[in-house]
Amino acid sequence: MRLSAVLLNCTLKTSPEVSNTQALMDHVVNHLEDLDVACESIRIVDYNVPFGVSSDEGDGDEWPQILEKIIAGDILIIGTPIWFGVRSSVCQLVIERLDGTYNSTNEVGQYPLYNTVAGVVVTGNEDGAHDAASTTLFNLSHLGCTIPPNADTYWLGDAGPGPSFIEADGWSSAYTQKTASWMSHNVVHLARMLKEHPIPPEGNTVPMKHGG
Amino acid sequence: MRLSAVLLNCTLKTSPEVSNTQALMDHVVNHLEDLDVACESIRIVDYNVPFGVSSDEGDGDEWPQILEKIIAGDILIIGTPIWFGVRSSVCQLVIERLDGTYNSTNEVGQYPLYNTVAGVVVTGNEDGAHDAASTTLFNLSHLGCTIPPNADTYWLGDAGPGPSFIEADGWSSAYTQKTASWMSHNVVHLARMLKEHPIPPEGNTVPMKHGG
Amino acid sequence: MRLSAVLLNCTLKTSPEVSNTQALMDHVVNHLEDLDVACESIRIVDYNVPFGVSSDEGDGDEWPQILEKIIAGDILIIGTPIWFGVRSSVCQLVIERLDGTYNSTNEVGQYPLYNTVAGVVVTGNEDGAHDAASTTLFNLSHLGCTIPPNADTYWLGDAGPGPSFIEADGWSSAYTQKTASWMSHNVVHLARMLKEHPIPPEGNTVPMKHGG
Amino acid sequence: MRLSAVLLNCTLKTSPEVSNTQALMDHVVNHLEDLDVACESIRIVDYNVPFGVSSDEGDGDEWPQILEKIIAGDILIIGTPIWFGVRSSVCQLVIERLDGTYNSTNEVGQYPLYNTVAGVVVTGNEDGAHDAASTTLFNLSHLGCTIPPNADTYWLGDAGPGPSFIEADGWSSAYTQKTASWMSHNVVHLARMLKEHPIPPEGNTVPMKHGG
Repeated sequence: MRLSAVLLNCTLKTSPEVSNTQALMDHVVNHLEDLDVACESIRIVDYNVPFGVSSDEGDGDEWPQILEKIIAGDILIIGTPIWFGVRSSVCQLVIERLDGTYNSTNEVGQYPLYNTVAGVVVTGNEDGAHDAASTTLFNLSHLGCTIPPNADTYWLGDAGPGPSFIEADGWSSAYTQKTASWMSHNVVHLARMLKEHPIPPEGNTVPMKHGG
Repeated sequence: MRLSAVLLNCTLKTSPEVSNTQALMDHVVNHLEDLDVACESIRIVDYNVPFGVSSDEGDGDEWPQILEKIIAGDILIIGTPIWFGVRSSVCQLVIERLDGTYNSTNEVGQYPLYNTVAGVVVTGNEDGAHDAASTTLFNLSHLGCTIPPNADTYWLGDAGPGPSFIEADGWSSAYTQKTASWMSHNVVHLARMLKEHPIPPEGNTVPMKHGG
Repeated sequence: MRLSAVLLNCTLKTSPEVSNTQALMDHVVNHLEDLDVACESIRIVDYNVPFGVSSDEGDGDEWPQILEKIIAGDILIIGTPIWFGVRSSVCQLVIERLDGTYNSTNEVGQYPLYNTVAGVVVTGNEDGAHDAASTTLFNLSHLGCTIPPNADTYWLGDAGPGPSFIEADGWSSAYTQKTASWMSHNVVHLARMLKEHPIPPEGNTVPMKHGG
Repeated sequence: MRLSAVLLNCTLKTSPEVSNTQALMDHVVNHLEDLDVACESIRIVDYNVPFGVSSDEGDGDEWPQILEKIIAGDILIIGTPIWFGVRSSVCQLVIERLDGTYNSTNEVGQYPLYNTVAGVVVTGNEDGAHDAASTTLFNLSHLGCTIPPNADTYWLGDAGPGPSFIEADGWSSAYTQKTASWMSHNVVHLARMLKEHPIPPEGNTVPMKHGG
């Protein structure tokens, strides 16, 4: 069965402005498609996604349709720029909105993101990739995702302000190329495994809520 | 085949001083043993483990014998107290020493900790569990470990100084009990899966070093 | 000369919803007013403050009027709830918008927030206050603020989900009371000092931009 | 009156091994001496400083003599390498040992580090400076230090493993040069201010302990 991936770009910039984070995400998409994964990239700020911690904040909230895709996918990749050494406000907003999934379960009683495999893509002028990646992967593990080995790829320039990923030709970095490939392969390896052998609903289920 | 787990206690206190972190780790051991996992707990400060980033710093370094057990195990649990809002110096030392594993590989060319599943146990008077857990799990994922859903358990009191886990009867916390059980089950679920279906050595191997 | 303080509440909830963070901030306001400081509290989500990293994103952006007050004030207090172990998306947005201040200077050539003293107020069900406070105070120090001793106050419940500040009667916490008082006194002590003896523009100025 | 600074190098390497962190710290020393500050650099791992959270762990503990110098100084600079995206285990150990100062006070009843000004120096192959600096400065603010604007300087290479500060000629970085100079000037500006006008013992004192 073919795997599918949803990639959320948490840039601050709306389309059609060029996103450096998307540029690195596109390389990940190339890898995933080579591994026969159907990919969809979503730029969060192009949608009406208000602040909140529920799965539907009403009033034209477009998060529900994004969430549906996330839950249907086998792989979830979150891409974020770094601002002030940490992940973007949009990335934090996405994680906050995922809080709503704690109120429902999959058909066997686990959190909805069980059996989803997660990875992270980070770009910045400098410094902050470990913090952005570790906070985000940890949050996703709390939400039910499985984190494979080497589940992050990033590009950064050296200390201080400087050119961004595209302008700096960040893809020429051997480290970024290697980690983009490793992450892509490992999310696929684990997603295949979990597709064939889902995590048993033993010792990790929650009491169903009314209509949950 | 029976699974095995190594649990590293990164308390600052040498035996026989009572370790609050060990007290919570012991509950995890109970869960793991109920799931038929052979467990060994190691209190790092009871050994001669000097600062460094290689797998053998010489001069009576006892890290090599601990590392051997870690690599032989299917599950690696790191337990740490919180000091000043983050994981202990001993926990950071353990992670630094694991840097040495980047210089060798398993028999198929992956980092030695591939196919090991990781979890984290944290105790503190207050505040810092997310930071300690996320930094540690992220580091372990870089080293090759797989992180299952809900891979951490912790106990904390409310804001400010206060009693520690044992004195406060921390085990009476429903949240700590639940997460200890979930973590134990999930590390076992994933470890069984990886034992039967190891992560394929595709897209995640390193060039073998001399004798590596 | 009378001191003035601006307090930014970075809750996710718009008025008139009750904000737990505001409830703790109000105690800080009481302390500051007792010390003869003129206080203004601003709830960011009640204004149109779009994502961005400039001081005016146009199109009805209401950040410029908030920024003007921040720069005019002697003391800047940022209040944030904790979500997923870190500061809120709204708090991150505020910090991102302050990036725009790097493009201007005060009248002696320092960043505009030089001679402003900063403090932080954090509330959450549990865990994350150190991370939220340290990231925020560090960012503010980069932007030019001075951080006095014990510049943060927070309230948290114990591990896991639970009641929030108001419901839990968080103000009964001796630690929260003490730190709210200490923070209030220390931001005032330093602000008075910097009002009388501003940081000399030696070794810390930037070349003026056109019209800077 | 002449100011004095104590600089703690938290490298993992004992003398006479070359420390990259010391190399950047030496540039800070040059700046401080130009500003007429008496400087003493201490490499922690050259001393017997055991794990612990008291000011004297006995048994040949050499921390007490280091602590005496720290408390006598006007400025405290902590230098740390980055390992796995965060500050070194030795740096964490130093912060843990400073926990002991909470049990005593200065002559007016404040924590002993009140009226000390703090700064941080960080070096790494890549990524982690913000995390190392913010955690460390925040901890020092809790311990009583004042943090001036732009209180950190660091050098990092771009993403992935690579040469360290000395080999990479990190001092050629305009950003590192600028921040080293700014930090040095600002710790001196604030230290002079606090020497002439100490933080008043109002709203920030602790009940004296026996013999404290």
